[in-house]
Amino acid sequence: MVANTLSLENEVFVTFAFYAAVVIFKTILMSVWTARFRLPRKTPPLPEDYSLFTENGPKSINTVHRDPDIERVRRCHRNDLENVIPFVLIGLLYVLIGPNAVTATWHFRIFAGCRLLYTFAFLNGISVARAPGFLGGLGVNISMSLQVLSATMKYM
Amino acid sequence: MVANTLSLENEVFVTFAFYAAVVIFKTILMSVWTARFRLPRKTPPLPEDYSLFTENGPKSINTVHRDPDIERVRRCHRNDLENVIPFVLIGLLYVLIGPNAVTATWHFRIFAGCRLLYTFAFLNGISVARAPGFLGGLGVNISMSLQVLSATMKYM
Amino acid sequence: MVANTLSLENEVFVTFAFYAAVVIFKTILMSVWTARFRLPRKTPPLPEDYSLFTENGPKSINTVHRDPDIERVRRCHRNDLENVIPFVLIGLLYVLIGPNAVTATWHFRIFAGCRLLYTFAFLNGISVARAPGFLGGLGVNISMSLQVLSATMKYM
Repeated sequence: MVANTLSLENEVFVTFAFYAAVVIFKTILMSVWTARFRLPRKTPPLPEDYSLFTENGPKSINTVHRDPDIERVRRCHRNDLENVIPFVLIGLLYVLIGPNAVTATWHFRIFAGCRLLYTFAFLNGISVARAPGFLGGLGVNISMSLQVLSATMKYM
Repeated sequence: MVANTLSLENEVFVTFAFYAAVVIFKTILMSVWTARFRLPRKTPPLPEDYSLFTENGPKSINTVHRDPDIERVRRCHRNDLENVIPFVLIGLLYVLIGPNAVTATWHFRIFAGCRLLYTFAFLNGISVARAPGFLGGLGVNISMSLQVLSATMKYM
Repeated sequence: MVANTLSLENEVFVTFAFYAAVVIFKTILMSVWTARFRLPRKTPPLPEDYSLFTENGPKSINTVHRDPDIERVRRCHRNDLENVIPFVLIGLLYVLIGPNAVTATWHFRIFAGCRLLYTFAFLNGISVARAPGFLGGLGVNISMSLQVLSATMKYM
């Protein structure tokens, strides 16, 4: 019986691990995306970095220039921290309570799809696509949370 | 022997999964709480969102109005990311080193209780209740970290 | 066969749990580091806190004084959230796909070493040491993500 174990023989775990890796990888790439803007625009995050290419850099961390495009990526990155990380954590607990495989697969797929939609809409400034991307991911997280609470309360 | 496995037969895991789900769920709800203010006050987070209801919205992400009540929820949310996420991660490793069930249960209970107190005190501006809520959670995280370090070092 | 299980008999898990606890503990200590500055400089994070020692505190969360040294620690802390948390999450999945023990150990060691270097360089304003610390940790996270994706795709 491997229905609720964390091994490659448990199909629910495999599906979870795949989609979790997709959204974690996407979150990690936000750092790379920030750097993509910072290097060509010469807007590093800390005052001491400016001495590498100019003598008139900002003196304090509070007066470093905030490029709007970089701020946008950073906000999107923070939103990932607020949603992707809880997804992986509650998702792992959800796998361990032994959910129905089909239901679980759809939870993971919808979350990953919504996050990719959300990121695309956020970075390109498309309000109408960002909202459903956010709400879909939020719904999955709330659903998994309630199922974990319900399953564990029975054993306490 | 299920003393240090991640299954519903292990009472330490069940207790952990329950309290972890409580604090993750609370963290997820901070997003909903932010939206609660953003919708009625018409202060969405990105400049393109304003075009849905006004023609005089901010032009840049850097000049979007920062409502103090929303900033408060966002700070509280960030504090959750800094404390709740490490709790779940180190807590999972702590369950896996096979702690005493009574000791472990009190670690999880104190953390969850302190976080609820902290959130209530943060959102309502009550300094004297926020400090112990923060310190209690911090103490639990430090305690679990040191126990995981101590247990794993023996096997390395 | 305990090659890919989460138990103290699996050496890959033990190594992971040790280094994960090191970097989580370091992340948790950033909160303490922030407080170290906040108390002596009397710059608490929220306006209501000022009433404990002055009558001329800021009236709004938006006008609280931002001490540059505290902002530096907070940025470093956020960078931990963006890198350490994904490391622990993808690292756990990586342990579960049963990697080669030597390869896995080096992944964990390099990440932990780079993070300690990064933190030291960030807090002391040393640009040339911060960059490799960041890139080393990023490389480890990308490598583990791709290995988890590759291993799970075979089973789907």
